[in-house]
Amino acid sequence: MRSTLPYSIVRAGHAELLVRDLALSRRFYEDILGFVVTEESEGRLFLRGVEERHHHSLVLTESDVPMLGHLAFRVAEDDDLDAMASYFQTLGCHVHFIEEGEEPGQGRALRVQDPFGFPLEFYAEMSPAECLLQKYHLHKGAGVRRLDHFNCFVSDLASCEAMWCEGFGFRVTEYVETDEEPRVKKAVWLQRKGNVHDIALMEGRGPRLHHIGFWMDDMASIIRTCDILGGAEMHEHIERGPGRHGISNAFFLYLRDPDGHRIELYTSDYLTVDPDHRPIRWSATDPRRQTLWGHQTPESWWRDGTVVMDWERNVPVELCGTTDARAAGYIK
Amino acid sequence: MRSTLPYSIVRAGHAELLVRDLALSRRFYEDILGFVVTEESEGRLFLRGVEERHHHSLVLTESDVPMLGHLAFRVAEDDDLDAMASYFQTLGCHVHFIEEGEEPGQGRALRVQDPFGFPLEFYAEMSPAECLLQKYHLHKGAGVRRLDHFNCFVSDLASCEAMWCEGFGFRVTEYVETDEEPRVKKAVWLQRKGNVHDIALMEGRGPRLHHIGFWMDDMASIIRTCDILGGAEMHEHIERGPGRHGISNAFFLYLRDPDGHRIELYTSDYLTVDPDHRPIRWSATDPRRQTLWGHQTPESWWRDGTVVMDWERNVPVELCGTTDARAAGYIK
Amino acid sequence: MRSTLPYSIVRAGHAELLVRDLALSRRFYEDILGFVVTEESEGRLFLRGVEERHHHSLVLTESDVPMLGHLAFRVAEDDDLDAMASYFQTLGCHVHFIEEGEEPGQGRALRVQDPFGFPLEFYAEMSPAECLLQKYHLHKGAGVRRLDHFNCFVSDLASCEAMWCEGFGFRVTEYVETDEEPRVKKAVWLQRKGNVHDIALMEGRGPRLHHIGFWMDDMASIIRTCDILGGAEMHEHIERGPGRHGISNAFFLYLRDPDGHRIELYTSDYLTVDPDHRPIRWSATDPRRQTLWGHQTPESWWRDGTVVMDWERNVPVELCGTTDARAAGYIK
Amino acid sequence: MRSTLPYSIVRAGHAELLVRDLALSRRFYEDILGFVVTEESEGRLFLRGVEERHHHSLVLTESDVPMLGHLAFRVAEDDDLDAMASYFQTLGCHVHFIEEGEEPGQGRALRVQDPFGFPLEFYAEMSPAECLLQKYHLHKGAGVRRLDHFNCFVSDLASCEAMWCEGFGFRVTEYVETDEEPRVKKAVWLQRKGNVHDIALMEGRGPRLHHIGFWMDDMASIIRTCDILGGAEMHEHIERGPGRHGISNAFFLYLRDPDGHRIELYTSDYLTVDPDHRPIRWSATDPRRQTLWGHQTPESWWRDGTVVMDWERNVPVELCGTTDARAAGYIK
Repeated sequence: MRSTLPYSIVRAGHAELLVRDLALSRRFYEDILGFVVTEESEGRLFLRGVEERHHHSLVLTESDVPMLGHLAFRVAEDDDLDAMASYFQTLGCHVHFIEEGEEPGQGRALRVQDPFGFPLEFYAEMSPAECLLQKYHLHKGAGVRRLDHFNCFVSDLASCEAMWCEGFGFRVTEYVETDEEPRVKKAVWLQRKGNVHDIALMEGRGPRLHHIGFWMDDMASIIRTCDILGGAEMHEHIERGPGRHGISNAFFLYLRDPDGHRIELYTSDYLTVDPDHRPIRWSATDPRRQTLWGHQTPESWWRDGTVVMDWERNVPVELCGTTDARAAGYIK
Repeated sequence: MRSTLPYSIVRAGHAELLVRDLALSRRFYEDILGFVVTEESEGRLFLRGVEERHHHSLVLTESDVPMLGHLAFRVAEDDDLDAMASYFQTLGCHVHFIEEGEEPGQGRALRVQDPFGFPLEFYAEMSPAECLLQKYHLHKGAGVRRLDHFNCFVSDLASCEAMWCEGFGFRVTEYVETDEEPRVKKAVWLQRKGNVHDIALMEGRGPRLHHIGFWMDDMASIIRTCDILGGAEMHEHIERGPGRHGISNAFFLYLRDPDGHRIELYTSDYLTVDPDHRPIRWSATDPRRQTLWGHQTPESWWRDGTVVMDWERNVPVELCGTTDARAAGYIK
Repeated sequence: MRSTLPYSIVRAGHAELLVRDLALSRRFYEDILGFVVTEESEGRLFLRGVEERHHHSLVLTESDVPMLGHLAFRVAEDDDLDAMASYFQTLGCHVHFIEEGEEPGQGRALRVQDPFGFPLEFYAEMSPAECLLQKYHLHKGAGVRRLDHFNCFVSDLASCEAMWCEGFGFRVTEYVETDEEPRVKKAVWLQRKGNVHDIALMEGRGPRLHHIGFWMDDMASIIRTCDILGGAEMHEHIERGPGRHGISNAFFLYLRDPDGHRIELYTSDYLTVDPDHRPIRWSATDPRRQTLWGHQTPESWWRDGTVVMDWERNVPVELCGTTDARAAGYIK
Repeated sequence: MRSTLPYSIVRAGHAELLVRDLALSRRFYEDILGFVVTEESEGRLFLRGVEERHHHSLVLTESDVPMLGHLAFRVAEDDDLDAMASYFQTLGCHVHFIEEGEEPGQGRALRVQDPFGFPLEFYAEMSPAECLLQKYHLHKGAGVRRLDHFNCFVSDLASCEAMWCEGFGFRVTEYVETDEEPRVKKAVWLQRKGNVHDIALMEGRGPRLHHIGFWMDDMASIIRTCDILGGAEMHEHIERGPGRHGISNAFFLYLRDPDGHRIELYTSDYLTVDPDHRPIRWSATDPRRQTLWGHQTPESWWRDGTVVMDWERNVPVELCGTTDARAAGYIK
């Protein structure tokens, strides 16, 4: 039960999105979603939710090509970074370290393109920032509270799950599986911080980011967000929801930002800290896994994702695999 | 401004639905929606919402053919019934009166098949029933509070609106209209009790009932209803929503009962008592009238309705007109 | 049943509060409560809730002495004003008319000091203003929706109730009464617009305003208001609540503005349009009338009120009667 | 940073309350709070919240004397129990083990009266039970989701905090301290599972249980609970709230069960998994720590607590220390 790994990932830490028009994105993330700006530097915006106590959980970087800059995880101690670097090298990955401050507000960090093509970052330290949780009079728009999780399309789900679980100590909370023998997993939800997930993996054309999930205080604030978007005639940013997922039990809303990056507002899942917490299996043909209310998932939600950056070449990583939602039985 | 009519309609009063399996319908209306049973007699169930102080706002009558039994309105005084009978006679309608108690709990009532085919009832008195509003520990399921409105498909919208407005003193609060000259109204919302509507009329194949709307206390209780239906694996009863209508501003959820009769759970509209309250015009091509959040309306919502009973022959009234949602520009 | 009065009051229309520091009050009403400023003129601010379609429901006027400027009611037609003036003259009151625009945004109006000392205004017309209900992205703070009611301390409750009911056609929805014979009414809730009240009268030292009640969309927005006030370290403005009244069933929050004027945020009462709607009696010794949750009412709530202006002399009307809450059995 | 302890506590696990009338308590916990009964044996009831996946989080045991039977914590592995037993022996405590099933549903467990007099239990295994989270149609009353934390009065706060932090690896998230030098801690919030607390310690007459906190889904369900209690005329069970704590940011409601045991319904706190999460200091004179809304805490809340059982003698442990709320500066 007790981990034998020489390092420990604490939680999903932050993400960097490359956006084409920083001013336009700022309006969406600051005014509508209620992110707080910690720092603004040439072409970049460092944002945090109202509950967050560190420099950033979301970085927006202006770029000609919209893509995912990187996904970052906090680790327990600085030494963990070296141990993780060794592990990635055994996987044949090229790793490099950036110094404290190279990413503003962040300590020394390990960067790696993982075997599945994702640009990952690991760090133990980030400079503190004021928590605005109890300054309710300053909350704006949706008042997003904190980063919750990442969700990714990967072409080789089984290997990728193995890396996260065996390599990094993530634990499966829920999964989707075909019914025919041999059963094949189509998606997994993996956690470190004690709720349903820090990262979810869905089989599909990858590497791509499906969405970044942010925690909301309650269902009422998600409804308010819909009304605010509707009022501002920005309803086209609403892609799916609000609704209740079967998987995770979350009350959810999916938005598309001005570049099409997908953001989930998420609340009402459950505690998973018990060592004997047993993964929940969903059949790939059970519509209740998608939503308990029977809403149909729009095809775009199955199809679209954000390409991810090649750390070395600053261009999107080439895709492989398919996200054929119909073939996968997701859509009839 | 002051009415010159010799009678006064107070509000939408109750409806009778003919259902094929009373036990099945009872489960839906009592356990899931939280209606309170006032009286049960052979083949009939008399229901009220938790706020209601009278014998019934909904009657379920077992029948081989599901249809609308009648729509009923409360009038201010018993004398109004005679004056209304005269008015209907000038319209060429056959009227008849039923005595107190003929419909359990109800006083003397006027029954008429209106010129558009709808089986209407008017009554001034109904026996009191205990209001359970503050007995929160007894509320079940959705805890439906009270009847709010009726919504009907009519083939001749202009004439029908004229009857309700000029004949009965209803006032228009919102309407949908084509943009091309001559502009044509496609739907109107008409009120007596001081909120957005007691009855709405939509042009279409009629006479048919589109839905009966019930008032809910708040958005949270509508969300709970979705979860209760989802939990009970009865999500197929959810046809549309939850969402926010542009028209009426209501937060809504549309359900289909076991016979397909459509029920709206409705809250968060606005006050309309001012004499100078001006109707809001919506273009028939403005998608925000349907929902501020951009959700697409399912085709069934445009298409399906409940046929209405011919008082004299106990069979559905024949339909005329069309509800060609595509031709009408409702659906692309 | 049908009114025989030659005039018709539609609803509580607006109130004028005299405040000592207009900038300070503006912060409270605009930033915290979310009122919209329609017009600002020297020393006066004209405010409306986000649902309101007319020039103002609240006027703040800078003054050395904080008091109630006036309470105003909308009537159905301009002619009603003359008929009401006659009625007040039969009561021995001095009346006068102000011309259209003398109070910005308002048509011709009747002003009178009623027999109980209250400065009342009646008007049939007010210029329209944009309704911001569906511009949810512009709502601030509590997002107050609309004026709901006034609540007043009067020393001669029985006579004052008679004036409003017999003189103006108000109907009693709830009342508080002693248990001993002869029973004595201690408070009444009176309505015109179809919910629990447009005005409530409580026996006590008067004439004084107890509070002005504004309608809120739901309980969640009232909770948010508490958090916003708490976040801004303005919690001392919260006098009582949130809680659930037995009387009216309202979910309530009582605030004190910078001058101590009391504002109620109010939602979740019920419909009262039926002609046979029967008043609910509460015993003066039943603690559930105050709150269903058993919270104790703070003594200040029973004790404090806003003095009212003498139209002619611009000073507070002298008080008579007592508000001895203990003697009245309100507080043990 | 990484723990060097030879055992690991996962979270607060369950509590046993001794109650005088099991049928009466059952009504409170099952019908009003919505606990699910897993097992009923002679004189005992094993309950769980709707989210919980194990046999029980609350045990009610009929007894002549109401008291706390025990507080239990889940540990990571069965071996941890032996290591913990050794640790308690170094503290001079008498320990004993109970076999699997001796407490129904539970594996082998360590029982000890800790140096501060609390009857503690530690266990690694409990038999699974159906999670009813998504069976929303079966939720009753408050629909309590899961155990969150314990809160205790102790006379020697510093030593007790040391045991939990140094001995068991708990981490401080918030604390209350006097302002004068030398500063003295008056209360601490300690966590293992990643939110604000698994156990809180308040200086006072002890050993006593102050309350058991249960997680609720959102604020709306806590408001509903107040209405349900009010509707059932059980409002006297409401001791404090609803309100917003400064400490923990929780939206709270405190209830007293039929024996006076205090239950908190709790939601909306925050994530604390980061290794560098810094404790929040509150001055013992800052009223905002108690509530952001300025509500006064009732004296009973400071004064009353549940005595705890002596494992060996089945009688309450004798108390020492004081809970002089006034002397402590809690109440003026």
